[in-house]
Amino acid sequence: MIKTMSEGALMNDKQSGLVTGEFDEGLKEGVYRAIYSRRDIRAQFKNDPIPEEVLSRILHAAHHAPSVGFMQPWNFILVRKEGIREKIHAAFQQANAEAAMMFSGEKREQYKGFKLEGIMESPLNICITRDRERFGPVVIGRTANQIMDLYSCVCAVQNLWLAARAEGMGVGWVSIIHDREIREILHLPSHVAPVAYLCIGYVTHFPERPELEAAGWLPRLPLNELVFCDQWGEECKPSWPELHKEIVKQKDI
Amino acid sequence: MIKTMSEGALMNDKQSGLVTGEFDEGLKEGVYRAIYSRRDIRAQFKNDPIPEEVLSRILHAAHHAPSVGFMQPWNFILVRKEGIREKIHAAFQQANAEAAMMFSGEKREQYKGFKLEGIMESPLNICITRDRERFGPVVIGRTANQIMDLYSCVCAVQNLWLAARAEGMGVGWVSIIHDREIREILHLPSHVAPVAYLCIGYVTHFPERPELEAAGWLPRLPLNELVFCDQWGEECKPSWPELHKEIVKQKDI
Repeated sequence: MIKTMSEGALMNDKQSGLVTGEFDEGLKEGVYRAIYSRRDIRAQFKNDPIPEEVLSRILHAAHHAPSVGFMQPWNFILVRKEGIREKIHAAFQQANAEAAMMFSGEKREQYKGFKLEGIMESPLNICITRDRERFGPVVIGRTANQIMDLYSCVCAVQNLWLAARAEGMGVGWVSIIHDREIREILHLPSHVAPVAYLCIGYVTHFPERPELEAAGWLPRLPLNELVFCDQWGEECKPSWPELHKEIVKQKDI
Repeated sequence: MIKTMSEGALMNDKQSGLVTGEFDEGLKEGVYRAIYSRRDIRAQFKNDPIPEEVLSRILHAAHHAPSVGFMQPWNFILVRKEGIREKIHAAFQQANAEAAMMFSGEKREQYKGFKLEGIMESPLNICITRDRERFGPVVIGRTANQIMDLYSCVCAVQNLWLAARAEGMGVGWVSIIHDREIREILHLPSHVAPVAYLCIGYVTHFPERPELEAAGWLPRLPLNELVFCDQWGEECKPSWPELHKEIVKQKDI
């Protein structure tokens, strides 16, 4: 079964139905469970080391994201050294202080109360970057939209995030930091851009709901307000959440 | 088990261990299988209709992507009308002709031979957009990097892509089209940007390997060339693919 994790095995493993095969209910459940129970982790990291085979599996998962023109524009910088993480943390603190000033009154106080990163507490940080020159300059599918290579790297982030959740690990995306600081601290060349700075590790628990939702900062939007038909603003019938509730009810029986 | 697909059930379902629970080998396999067998589908669409409960599940999966500051900046425009899809297809053809001119000699001929979209053959197109003003103007986590809202939408794309694969459906991302054309055809307001134009449907089969890899256009890069330690350019030991092969070998026994 574990052959799924091997690219080599994947390609030679026609008989297992791996690529063309259907997902039974159990396999489907794995996918939906990862999607629904994934969280942005900041405060729940344990310092337990990550076994190298687990790290290898989540990196391979990221490396098998879709990429425009098959250019695989990503790199993965595994940041463990305390000195480097301290610099990243200082850059976060600076950007976070700037951010706090953008909120006013009560919102500012509430903002200051949120823990928004786990840079030092997590056992591993990973910076996923984008190399614009890889297999370039002309890349299939990137001709009308140069930004597609960034999108490919974000797909790799999400693959890694879901694989990590399946492995029992949490991931937190540190977005409150200026790119120029990451570039300087990690010595990125000019054609390479930071896309995501991630904190990774085992956790005490996965919060039941996204933390900003649980804190009452913002509500989950109803899906039917977000879905249109054929063009912007045209309502769809049936409305999705109600349909969805019906489905769930049926399956619960 | 199907409760995993319900947000409502998820939040009230502590006892099932859904959120905090560990993934057994079977659930893990579902996640990795979706990641490794997902393909960018262009030529393999069947015209079979997509049941509304399946559509609801993949849209809910997208809606549960991570989003910066919990802003949920996405909308989903379901495009079924033939007239609108014909306009999108014409816009693709124009951008594709421009793209072909960027390649020279043999590469241009090979490029022209690729099928790069399934706009008319797939039963459903979905445009995922980003609303920059949602819950704005100040959004937690988007203060230093305005682009984070786009990244959230791409995470939604990848969730939808993996959920669709689990449901036996293929997805193809049409990137060879100018944003201004999509804006005009789908009547997007100025604060909303198209992120991904997707073709979705059941398929005759999922190709064993990514098509551009199988065609010899570009090779899969070895992971060890893409992983650095602590800063750009610093080699990691052990190298990942070899470690990975060892793991697979152990598990195969």
